Amino acid sequence: MSDFSGLSALLLNCSLKTSAKESHTRRLLARVAGVMEAEGVPAEILHVLDHHVAFGMVEDATEHGADRDDWPMIQEKVMAADILVIGTPIWLGVKSSVATLAIERLYASSGHTNDKGQWLYYGKTGGCVITGNEDGVKACSKEILYGLQHIGYMIPPQADCGWIGEAGPGPSYGDVVEGADVPAGYDNEFTNRNATYMAWNLMHTAAMLRDSGGIPAEGNTSHGWRDGSNAADLEPEPVV
Amino acid sequence: MSDFSGLSALLLNCSLKTSAKESHTRRLLARVAGVMEAEGVPAEILHVLDHHVAFGMVEDATEHGADRDDWPMIQEKVMAADILVIGTPIWLGVKSSVATLAIERLYASSGHTNDKGQWLYYGKTGGCVITGNEDGVKACSKEILYGLQHIGYMIPPQADCGWIGEAGPGPSYGDVVEGADVPAGYDNEFTNRNATYMAWNLMHTAAMLRDSGGIPAEGNTSHGWRDGSNAADLEPEPVV
Amino acid sequence: MSDFSGLSALLLNCSLKTSAKESHTRRLLARVAGVMEAEGVPAEILHVLDHHVAFGMVEDATEHGADRDDWPMIQEKVMAADILVIGTPIWLGVKSSVATLAIERLYASSGHTNDKGQWLYYGKTGGCVITGNEDGVKACSKEILYGLQHIGYMIPPQADCGWIGEAGPGPSYGDVVEGADVPAGYDNEFTNRNATYMAWNLMHTAAMLRDSGGIPAEGNTSHGWRDGSNAADLEPEPVV
Amino acid sequence: MSDFSGLSALLLNCSLKTSAKESHTRRLLARVAGVMEAEGVPAEILHVLDHHVAFGMVEDATEHGADRDDWPMIQEKVMAADILVIGTPIWLGVKSSVATLAIERLYASSGHTNDKGQWLYYGKTGGCVITGNEDGVKACSKEILYGLQHIGYMIPPQADCGWIGEAGPGPSYGDVVEGADVPAGYDNEFTNRNATYMAWNLMHTAAMLRDSGGIPAEGNTSHGWRDGSNAADLEPEPVV
Repeated sequence: MSDFSGLSALLLNCSLKTSAKESHTRRLLARVAGVMEAEGVPAEILHVLDHHVAFGMVEDATEHGADRDDWPMIQEKVMAADILVIGTPIWLGVKSSVATLAIERLYASSGHTNDKGQWLYYGKTGGCVITGNEDGVKACSKEILYGLQHIGYMIPPQADCGWIGEAGPGPSYGDVVEGADVPAGYDNEFTNRNATYMAWNLMHTAAMLRDSGGIPAEGNTSHGWRDGSNAADLEPEPVV
Repeated sequence: MSDFSGLSALLLNCSLKTSAKESHTRRLLARVAGVMEAEGVPAEILHVLDHHVAFGMVEDATEHGADRDDWPMIQEKVMAADILVIGTPIWLGVKSSVATLAIERLYASSGHTNDKGQWLYYGKTGGCVITGNEDGVKACSKEILYGLQHIGYMIPPQADCGWIGEAGPGPSYGDVVEGADVPAGYDNEFTNRNATYMAWNLMHTAAMLRDSGGIPAEGNTSHGWRDGSNAADLEPEPVV
Repeated sequence: MSDFSGLSALLLNCSLKTSAKESHTRRLLARVAGVMEAEGVPAEILHVLDHHVAFGMVEDATEHGADRDDWPMIQEKVMAADILVIGTPIWLGVKSSVATLAIERLYASSGHTNDKGQWLYYGKTGGCVITGNEDGVKACSKEILYGLQHIGYMIPPQADCGWIGEAGPGPSYGDVVEGADVPAGYDNEFTNRNATYMAWNLMHTAAMLRDSGGIPAEGNTSHGWRDGSNAADLEPEPVV
Repeated sequence: MSDFSGLSALLLNCSLKTSAKESHTRRLLARVAGVMEAEGVPAEILHVLDHHVAFGMVEDATEHGADRDDWPMIQEKVMAADILVIGTPIWLGVKSSVATLAIERLYASSGHTNDKGQWLYYGKTGGCVITGNEDGVKACSKEILYGLQHIGYMIPPQADCGWIGEAGPGPSYGDVVEGADVPAGYDNEFTNRNATYMAWNLMHTAAMLRDSGGIPAEGNTSHGWRDGSNAADLEPEPVV
């Protein structure tokens, strides 16, 4: 049996709904969080629009003239969690403005290093959850997962899950559909399977990183990368 | 010191150049491979257009009427390697047709499972190398890394590297530039640093997976995902 | 000589800078607007973060509980203009949260129809301007141009322009660079040429649409598309 | 009534199926072509894999050592047509290798100019058709439409159409589904409506361009763009 002791997860719901309970994305996030909780991993779902997150490539916008900025509180939760999941609805085929904002704010701190001298988020693992009524799960996932790995997160296999309906407008995830036994998408085997894969792979990867004390600090620190084997010292011949 | 014994890497060069030696992407792949070799990890660069890879979502096109298909030989190398790197040039801001073809062919085998019942590529790790003269490293990387994680590869942090010049046409990576001391891009600290990070993070992740015997087979097998904690059994309330 | 009389343009600067004068994107937008103004086409640059635009897939967030929402004022300007340009910086390879928000808000009104029964933005033309210091012009452009054409805008050839520096961190567009004769990017022929192409192609297309009274209302209205030749009546054979 | 006389269309089917009749994408292309034909616009569907198209950023690969290259024949058809439609299946969320190859080959000729001195494809209009069983219509469309506008095509509003099923594996477009009255997707109103919009908007735009003699050659020629109002002469102040 896997040992997930000491691990925790933060799931950021980047829905455009001002009220968390109206969010469809929250429903699928709840399943992923539910698997984690069932395995003893505390998993908090935070509805970003319950807070006031300022725009800007800054760590704390109140130091740059903003009246209010709740991001530093969210950033603390990000840093305390081993696992980060970004949840977003799809609009026009892409992730929400709120998801884009959250990733920008994560990025604004990415110049800092962890205690090994690696980029700040090294040693953590991340994934994403996408819902829409039409199209775009993979398009959103690839942007989010790329962003997370770029700033230091390890991305397990099948680290995303999502639900969309058939081409065109229609019910969103969890909507009650007249004549149907279950809300839209709730019995979709593919979505449920992928949500399960994702939850477990994030926990397995977080456990692996915990056991290794993160990623070894060789070849990947901003100050030490030229000390060992490195690309700068391996100049290939010019193209002829 | 890290122990990378027993690991190996395959780097697929998906250049559009029919001759490997004219490829700019090969130059940057050579740096990444060089770091791996220096650490005792055999790293083969395979120029895809040296071979005849058939189109089609099939494992072996000769079983579907094609005269020739070299992919099965390449697939064997993929399966033998712990680390896979896709190298591609950028054209019109996206990855090459050859890179797209290679990923399609990897995908065609992805329905198989490994000996734990997980998708075929579980337990391996992947990254990518991008070169162009203008723009599009991240656009190519996110498509390639997404595809690799979707079929089972673990993606380490900063698993991509690339080089492009300033906006507009100009020299490609490794071109001799009149009046310059070094070929284009060869002294770019950012590119060299990222190539180093990438090579090391792939080796660290491959070692971690080797030591763990891959990813534990709980919650992520096609036949067993409903046996433990799973999303299907955690139906949230409908949206109101 | 082309006749651009009666045309006007709106350029939305979706910079993350709270102060318009600190925006690099504004500098390139100013060049595009400058070409239009020189040809007698009024071109307003609006700095989105000078206003308070609410989140949500709604036309006016104040009708849904928000204290304030300046989008309806911006939407009026959008509807009054023949040409719309979205300007955005690049962060992590993608368009800004502010650009994503602006497009969401445009989309929220897209269910309305114009006086011909076509989607609201039919008869208008759009483009985009991108700046960053590293990589991602085309990745941002394709998302923005796709969104605009999806809601009704005509996209001329070469409807985008941008500037980025060489791979890695460096000066942003318009930054004063020690030892250089001009600010970063100001003398980039490729950027200047594309900004010129874009400005002119938007004006030519807007003039063409003005002269044609928009796009003829045949085959493209939500209520009348089944009345003439249409795809629903042309069922192909099933796949065998 | 619109006058579409003298116009013609080419639809490139970039399916991975070696046999045209097994292609699902062909079914939806046939509907778009059918609308055009019904309006008197000849519309040829060309199955790319019926031909041997060489890899490479070249106009004719036989001049660079290839035994055979059918692209020059296809390029002639592209140049003879007013309307170009790229049809592609979705694999792993992105367009096919064949579609990527076709666009690379279009790009290889894009340095030539038309008789006005504009880029070669100026004066033409383009769109795309996407089918899959799961997800990715918009992701494919935005890449294809971006590529087309970048090399000179005018993109009308709603220039794409597509069909996908619900999240997860399932029937492809046109598959006979047991118990269903019609093949998969054939009665999808959204797909049929968008296919109709697309066909008509391409014809309207082509007619508009035909009537205007293409796009006026002011501000958008490689040799003359600095002669009139242009971005290079409008240097903005540096950023402070």
